[in-house]
Amino acid sequence: MDRQLIRQLKQIVGERYVLSDPAEMYVYECDGLTLHRKPPSLVVLPETAQQISEIVQLAEGRSIAYLARGAGTGLSGGALAVQGGLILQMSRMNRILEIDLDNRCVTVEPCVVNLDVSKAVLPHGFYFAPDPSSQMASTIGGNIAENSGGPHTLKYGTTVNHVLGLDVVLSGGRIVQLGGKSSDRLGYDLVGLFVGSEGTFGIVTKAILRLSPIPQKVKTFLAAYSSVREASQTVSDIIGAGIVPAALEMLDRLTIQAVEDSVYAAGYPRDAEAVLLVELDGLEAGMERLAERIVALCRQNAATEIRIARSNEEREKLWAGRKKAFGAMGRLMPGLYVQDAVIPRSSLPELMPKINAIAAGHGIAVANVFHAGDGNLHPNLLYDGQDPEQIQRVLQAVEEIMKLCVDAGGSITGEHGVGFEKKDFMPMIFSPEDLDIMGRVKSVFNPTGLCNPQKIFPTSKSCGESGIPYKIQYKTLDGKTEEIFRI
Amino acid sequence: MDRQLIRQLKQIVGERYVLSDPAEMYVYECDGLTLHRKPPSLVVLPETAQQISEIVQLAEGRSIAYLARGAGTGLSGGALAVQGGLILQMSRMNRILEIDLDNRCVTVEPCVVNLDVSKAVLPHGFYFAPDPSSQMASTIGGNIAENSGGPHTLKYGTTVNHVLGLDVVLSGGRIVQLGGKSSDRLGYDLVGLFVGSEGTFGIVTKAILRLSPIPQKVKTFLAAYSSVREASQTVSDIIGAGIVPAALEMLDRLTIQAVEDSVYAAGYPRDAEAVLLVELDGLEAGMERLAERIVALCRQNAATEIRIARSNEEREKLWAGRKKAFGAMGRLMPGLYVQDAVIPRSSLPELMPKINAIAAGHGIAVANVFHAGDGNLHPNLLYDGQDPEQIQRVLQAVEEIMKLCVDAGGSITGEHGVGFEKKDFMPMIFSPEDLDIMGRVKSVFNPTGLCNPQKIFPTSKSCGESGIPYKIQYKTLDGKTEEIFRI
Repeated sequence: MDRQLIRQLKQIVGERYVLSDPAEMYVYECDGLTLHRKPPSLVVLPETAQQISEIVQLAEGRSIAYLARGAGTGLSGGALAVQGGLILQMSRMNRILEIDLDNRCVTVEPCVVNLDVSKAVLPHGFYFAPDPSSQMASTIGGNIAENSGGPHTLKYGTTVNHVLGLDVVLSGGRIVQLGGKSSDRLGYDLVGLFVGSEGTFGIVTKAILRLSPIPQKVKTFLAAYSSVREASQTVSDIIGAGIVPAALEMLDRLTIQAVEDSVYAAGYPRDAEAVLLVELDGLEAGMERLAERIVALCRQNAATEIRIARSNEEREKLWAGRKKAFGAMGRLMPGLYVQDAVIPRSSLPELMPKINAIAAGHGIAVANVFHAGDGNLHPNLLYDGQDPEQIQRVLQAVEEIMKLCVDAGGSITGEHGVGFEKKDFMPMIFSPEDLDIMGRVKSVFNPTGLCNPQKIFPTSKSCGESGIPYKIQYKTLDGKTEEIFRI
Repeated sequence: MDRQLIRQLKQIVGERYVLSDPAEMYVYECDGLTLHRKPPSLVVLPETAQQISEIVQLAEGRSIAYLARGAGTGLSGGALAVQGGLILQMSRMNRILEIDLDNRCVTVEPCVVNLDVSKAVLPHGFYFAPDPSSQMASTIGGNIAENSGGPHTLKYGTTVNHVLGLDVVLSGGRIVQLGGKSSDRLGYDLVGLFVGSEGTFGIVTKAILRLSPIPQKVKTFLAAYSSVREASQTVSDIIGAGIVPAALEMLDRLTIQAVEDSVYAAGYPRDAEAVLLVELDGLEAGMERLAERIVALCRQNAATEIRIARSNEEREKLWAGRKKAFGAMGRLMPGLYVQDAVIPRSSLPELMPKINAIAAGHGIAVANVFHAGDGNLHPNLLYDGQDPEQIQRVLQAVEEIMKLCVDAGGSITGEHGVGFEKKDFMPMIFSPEDLDIMGRVKSVFNPTGLCNPQKIFPTSKSCGESGIPYKIQYKTLDGKTEEIFRI
């Protein structure tokens, strides 16, 4: 332990706000991707951009890696301290600084919880549109890092569409403002570039967020199917008809049963092979007619049941089942690997059975929850974390699923980011040329590479051709060399 | 003239496709910003990405500047060959390569005209949403360079929201693919970064564009006012009420009269001080009720007349007046300087009279057309290009208007780009730190700086503190040094 560093950090943030006791740091050894773990060397809790600037200078001066962490709900290991080093836990920066209704925006610190933004502006008829399933816990800083989406991404876009400006701390401790209240993006769109950079460019200290008006009317309904193929075809048909629902989600049988067995039981039909949740929002009148068209498409694809939420409570119940599905899956197996991939929407009916077949081929159960309208899949693999051989099979299945999606013209992540988890899949999508450009863009913001290292970019070949399994060497604070395994 | 270069270029693109005769190149000495002119050294018309790659290598090998040009409708001098050099005129790359209705996208070459994309997919119920007023002429490549908006930007966003993937040629002749059909933006959002980079990163050779479904119903109406302030207040009130019309445009008295005197006469009331055009689109039912709310807000702000288009012809006529307003202004004075600025929407009523006062203070007439819902202003200054002293006053007025908008929390351009025109206003918005980061991001794509030089970034101080007037030195192809003046 480096006593001098701890003393300097305490001078910057205050005595209470530096954690160095391994027991205190236990919670920081992973984020929502629990498959990979590594304790940080120290955790520091800054309160201002100025403090962050000083911490960054201190860390860089000693060649120590650092990263910012919010609620730790990320699913790709974006907040994993791969090399140890400093975690800047942003919890103290959790204030809503300004609500500007005239310009329909709100200025917040990065550790404000996503849903709290909406709660603060709800009385004025507005909300913050990006709605990751984690929105009761996940923070704006994390949403910005991962460019988070959610069920309503289909209609409203991801976080990048709702961020107007950022204050950030970059390498060397530079504090820089990007964008601002007027929504024009003048010069190069650095705000758009920063959003989704997965914490590898720098640390957000303030964000100006766009507010959206609450829709006049919301209509939510459920359609049940006796095959995944029929449900998938309905999704293709709805999109093909030029209809853009606010949300268009699919759950498969295993997910339905996990939800119905849990405290979040939503009344999904237990015997269904697939359930679609469709939500319309907007103007009240006219919605009825659109709903009828969708119902007709559901019937045409042999929906076994169609049920419309008749009250706000019924609507919330339908959504609770979806949003708590990952939690509910905890009943099925101790380990849950929430996967994230994208396919062209039109290939949904064809690829769904293939994904299930890949998992089955490895003897792994998979529970599927999809942002079906976007072609954004979440095949969730269930495993026992105590069984290394089973973990191997899970990782093998994931790699094959990724290849399947990429071969179909899709992608390795829709909304959870590349992070540590999928960096070695990047060459499936990007040429060395593309990755080189990305690397050089990163170097503009993060020339030392010390801000959240070992994320997004593939490990160099010598560390493991296929990416699974491989070792990473890192230096600890006391100068020793250690190795970490991917599993 | 460099005979060897011409010969090499002809070998690449074919004998017919290299222009070197000054008379043939006359049209290439400016784009829509006619205030600044400079003939290129040569114009070359490539047909493939491979040819462009070879041209770029050739130009860079000889340290010759190059830039791509589409229809030349840009209004900030983005296609101005400031240093002479090569213009790559993209006219031969004008094919629609694929219409993929399943995935709601279309793949095009860069010189496809904006409106032709919509025409091609209209029979299938789709269109391409970005609608710059120039859309009958401007090309997708130019729209991408400038991140073009239009009246419907208010609801549908700018070009960046509708581009899924790009093929580009970068420095060194590298051909790189960015993004693709699935709308996820994996890793850093290089597509989003490239769109709006004003041709300073490289040359687009192919684009995958997102298609939007044609709205079921469109309702367009006009409201006339006896003061600009009342019209502006109506805009603020509509937005403040949480209503997002598809478009919300304003024209002032001088513009109205110019339009009504022209062949595009739209039936705007001649005695009005301001006219608002409001368009709603979406589902048919329910629209009536929303229209009533808007009409009530217009009345509340003392609208003197409210008129609803009863047919598609009436609707098109109302829009023709707006879209041809710049052309119509040609009647008023020989020179028209189409300006572009942004203010926070809430300051519209307060700033409008100030802008007019600035122009009046310099004895310059100004005709205003606004994307009022976005706070995106187009004050158009009328001048006589034969009178250098008048041009001075125009430029002075523009600088003061820019300062006014920036001081109000706005910006120096909403949709026309910085280009050559406004690069010296950039320090009004960006710190040296910000500009340094942008410069380094540019260097990643365009390390030689030869791709569209002298755009976006301010002239170094020694060339003119205020930016007006100043000289630029450049080298001609035959090695001589020449100077160009800003006016």
